[in-house]
Amino acid sequence: MLEHLGDFKRTHYCGEISTADVGKKVRVAGWVDTTRDHGGVVFTDLRDRTGIVQVVFTPDISEELVEKAKKLKHEFVIAVEGTVRRRPPGTENPKLKTGEVEIYAEKLKILNKSLPLPFLIEDDIKVGEDVRLKYRFLDLRRNKMMENIIFRHKLYQTVRRVFNEEGFIEIETPYLTKSTPEGARDFLVPSRIYPGKFYALPQSPQLFKQILMVAGFDKYYQIARCFRDEDLRADRQPEFTQIDFEMSFVSERDVMDVAEKVIRTVYKELLGVEIGEIPVMTYDEAMKRFGTDRPDTRFGLELKEITDVAKTCGFKVFRTVVENGGIVKAINFKGGAKLSRKEIDDLTKFVGIYGAKGLAWIKVTTNGLQSPIVKFFTEGEMNEILKRLEAEVGDILFFVADKPDVVNAALSNLRLKLGRMAGLIDDSKINVLWVVDFPMFEWNEEENRWEALHHPFTSPKEEDVEKLLEDPASVRARAYDMVLNGVEIGGGSIRIHREDIQEKVFKVIGLSDEEAKERFGFLLEALKFGAPPHGGMAFGLDRLCAIMRGEESIRDVIAFPKTQRGQCLLTGAPDTVRPEQLEELHISVEVEEEE
Amino acid sequence: MLEHLGDFKRTHYCGEISTADVGKKVRVAGWVDTTRDHGGVVFTDLRDRTGIVQVVFTPDISEELVEKAKKLKHEFVIAVEGTVRRRPPGTENPKLKTGEVEIYAEKLKILNKSLPLPFLIEDDIKVGEDVRLKYRFLDLRRNKMMENIIFRHKLYQTVRRVFNEEGFIEIETPYLTKSTPEGARDFLVPSRIYPGKFYALPQSPQLFKQILMVAGFDKYYQIARCFRDEDLRADRQPEFTQIDFEMSFVSERDVMDVAEKVIRTVYKELLGVEIGEIPVMTYDEAMKRFGTDRPDTRFGLELKEITDVAKTCGFKVFRTVVENGGIVKAINFKGGAKLSRKEIDDLTKFVGIYGAKGLAWIKVTTNGLQSPIVKFFTEGEMNEILKRLEAEVGDILFFVADKPDVVNAALSNLRLKLGRMAGLIDDSKINVLWVVDFPMFEWNEEENRWEALHHPFTSPKEEDVEKLLEDPASVRARAYDMVLNGVEIGGGSIRIHREDIQEKVFKVIGLSDEEAKERFGFLLEALKFGAPPHGGMAFGLDRLCAIMRGEESIRDVIAFPKTQRGQCLLTGAPDTVRPEQLEELHISVEVEEEE
Repeated sequence: MLEHLGDFKRTHYCGEISTADVGKKVRVAGWVDTTRDHGGVVFTDLRDRTGIVQVVFTPDISEELVEKAKKLKHEFVIAVEGTVRRRPPGTENPKLKTGEVEIYAEKLKILNKSLPLPFLIEDDIKVGEDVRLKYRFLDLRRNKMMENIIFRHKLYQTVRRVFNEEGFIEIETPYLTKSTPEGARDFLVPSRIYPGKFYALPQSPQLFKQILMVAGFDKYYQIARCFRDEDLRADRQPEFTQIDFEMSFVSERDVMDVAEKVIRTVYKELLGVEIGEIPVMTYDEAMKRFGTDRPDTRFGLELKEITDVAKTCGFKVFRTVVENGGIVKAINFKGGAKLSRKEIDDLTKFVGIYGAKGLAWIKVTTNGLQSPIVKFFTEGEMNEILKRLEAEVGDILFFVADKPDVVNAALSNLRLKLGRMAGLIDDSKINVLWVVDFPMFEWNEEENRWEALHHPFTSPKEEDVEKLLEDPASVRARAYDMVLNGVEIGGGSIRIHREDIQEKVFKVIGLSDEEAKERFGFLLEALKFGAPPHGGMAFGLDRLCAIMRGEESIRDVIAFPKTQRGQCLLTGAPDTVRPEQLEELHISVEVEEEE
Repeated sequence: MLEHLGDFKRTHYCGEISTADVGKKVRVAGWVDTTRDHGGVVFTDLRDRTGIVQVVFTPDISEELVEKAKKLKHEFVIAVEGTVRRRPPGTENPKLKTGEVEIYAEKLKILNKSLPLPFLIEDDIKVGEDVRLKYRFLDLRRNKMMENIIFRHKLYQTVRRVFNEEGFIEIETPYLTKSTPEGARDFLVPSRIYPGKFYALPQSPQLFKQILMVAGFDKYYQIARCFRDEDLRADRQPEFTQIDFEMSFVSERDVMDVAEKVIRTVYKELLGVEIGEIPVMTYDEAMKRFGTDRPDTRFGLELKEITDVAKTCGFKVFRTVVENGGIVKAINFKGGAKLSRKEIDDLTKFVGIYGAKGLAWIKVTTNGLQSPIVKFFTEGEMNEILKRLEAEVGDILFFVADKPDVVNAALSNLRLKLGRMAGLIDDSKINVLWVVDFPMFEWNEEENRWEALHHPFTSPKEEDVEKLLEDPASVRARAYDMVLNGVEIGGGSIRIHREDIQEKVFKVIGLSDEEAKERFGFLLEALKFGAPPHGGMAFGLDRLCAIMRGEESIRDVIAFPKTQRGQCLLTGAPDTVRPEQLEELHISVEVEEEE
């Protein structure tokens, strides 16, 4: 039944046939989207990457042709030769780009058939993601998915054009490199030639791009794959794609200008959206007002601190927290006084996810304040709180008292939840901002040491260099993150280019000279031979693409993504391998009983 | 001594300053290439990515400035502000693009210093490649290396532009995938989440690009990294870069047309070279005339077969070979009769590398034939041989008798050697040709089975499909290789898009149904759901780039290559890792004593 393509040569894509082609002989090829027999005439919607065109097989040409066409089923692959004609009046399909025309088929080749599908090739399908991932070749045929991947293709091209225009050089860095664990876990690759030794897949091209600056390339970029063997939270992938760039002889603003040009250009050219001025906010301000370093500033509902009032108030819970170094912050949910006890209980559970042990609240009603905690405050204290939160009748105020981390995490997430609940977030808005002046280090409670908030190659502010060893907590970094609608889409920094400063930073994060040399010796070595001042940044391409396409999951903008547990359901990776393979690599598997 | 960049903003690249800038105040930054004190005036050659400009520090501006400039050494990193002026008459440097001007420095910032270098930053250095690879950040500062990498950047952009123009979609395929060993060894990546299971790094995106065709993307391309854990012969890298593409509803010529457009465009735009008609040669003809499937057709010196004559001749060595299924071929090295015995002995040793047990020869001189073997031939036989080889006085004829593989390998390499010796190869010529009609399978003596000459997804010729199981040796593949000056720079094929044919091919190469399903189940599955006819190709980008730049080694066009033994001398990869890392991955190292 199946035929060869032979000397068939396509003349048109399906979706491109229009009234301008009426009367022309055309040859098209693709997949049978639908097909139906209407009283001996077969109407087939033929689909390719560009869209759908109707093909008509009538007995006028030959009975044989119609008989053959009657065998067509969903997703059969066919090639058709025929003449384009206008559809008879009244039979046009305005939903279809090609809805005014049809192909009057003269020849049909059935090139391949298809089993019945596990799901239909249409935008809204009710099927688990596992099935979509297993049959990715079918899932990707769906219009929405195909458009996502084609959009991503355009994103690559536009991004590269911007960098090329700005004089950047695209350079590939290695994927088989050295394990330098800091932050996430490395994926390892056993060496066959050197028994007991391993390559690591890079978590980012960070050190190589710095080396390229030392080599004098001046401006580097790469759309690079990165690998992190993390516990896959939320919407992460073990391999992901980064728009990576680095520049020499620059300050923060120079790098930020390039990043802004990238983001403005892709939004304008691919979505027709003009991005306005991009404000700059300090880390301190972001934490104070929004409780997070990636604030969604499309709406208010800002956090207010009342630690000073809480410190001396009669409410023991607040007072004790403050006495132990904690803080108290609150938000005013306008019009929220109508929330039920059940709703408030749910919100209390919600903040519990972020470690908050409770969620105090005050309703402002025409009958005065309703709250389990009002009684613990003096009138003066309560007035100060109401004033600070600009409370009015109809509002509800929520309070969290705890360590600063917990308060900020709980309230920033509560803020987002309430903002969405109340419809405060305008989804059509694109809100971009910079967050700067990050602390250089944060204290790792578990390991009882300082660690770099960004990474240990980030330059401290010039004026803070002297404080590196004595007072790491006060040192600010020359780092900058770009935040889009509350999502960090990119980040970077001016790097350390001086060996003495790099050595100090390694010391602060607890690396001995020996450890520093073992892990980062090649960087320290490079810094000895004329390293220029340099800085750079990276955008998460998967995330950016998903946001631009309005997709919730990055998996929908990756052709072959893995599951949350790192599996490729299409190929079955990871999988067992033959014992000889392991032997050649000088490793053996150690599987514990409970696994 | 070191200063901050502060608010210094570069206005020009060094190499771009010209007489058009005379009188202008400029700010430049870069590396001290050379510096010399001429009677209290310091002349510094400042270098960046674009070239060199001379900076003059004179006491006219300030003694302090000159004192500071006197501290400069090789590869110090500096920023300079000054005024461009014409060099005094007679002091111009015609070797330098900027040789007519100099910068009269007013300000100097020393941004970083450098230790004395292990080698000088200049094109011709006498230092082992190991040192260059360890100090890659210095090696890449050399003009030639920097130009190689910048050329490679341009190559990427030009290649992508061609594919974009042709309607191809750039799609990223996974780097963490399933091990499907065939051909080379896989690099493996142990899974932490699934104990005892492994990802593999892809040897090429082959199966994914085929899946993309099944998904309907129609035209795909990618500049993709590939990984092969091979015994690193000659000039290979464990990770290398491929220009990879695939198309649906096409025949060989369609794919070849795109490939020709790629190669023509990069040669024309990047080197100004027009590539003419690209001839097509069958595998059989290439083997017959040149003894190799990647013939360098820039010169003659073709192989002639004399098996028929040898079969019945009196020379027992020849006759026995032919009786045992071997062949005898010869080449005529014009004017080679003057070769000494020593030179002939060396050539005999040379063909021994390729397995030839001897190299028979006949000199044609004014005194008749000189040869140890002439006596074994009748006059008729000898005349036939001389005629076939178009022998004239002054020539030497070389003969190899052995199994066809050995004869062809020995004589094709001897041909190249003699061609180079005699200066027959015009290095300015770019000679591109296609080799087609390859056999589908070759016999693997060691494993006693047929294996795919290209890969098992290559489609057999339509007319040969029926012979797949009965007579694999006679089946030809729809494959095509592009050969440039005797180097295979790309290859591809029309693929199998029908499940039944794919299953047959797996059977021929000795895979049981179970094995086929286990390794390639997802491909077989995809072929069941409407796979279109498709084909594609891949170019080796590293090799292409090296040839275009006239570099002998691909390592010179890769920013961070590995050694022949797979080591990165810069970072020290592969390296040992911490025991906890292995424990998390559920593996342990098994190193044998002798290692």
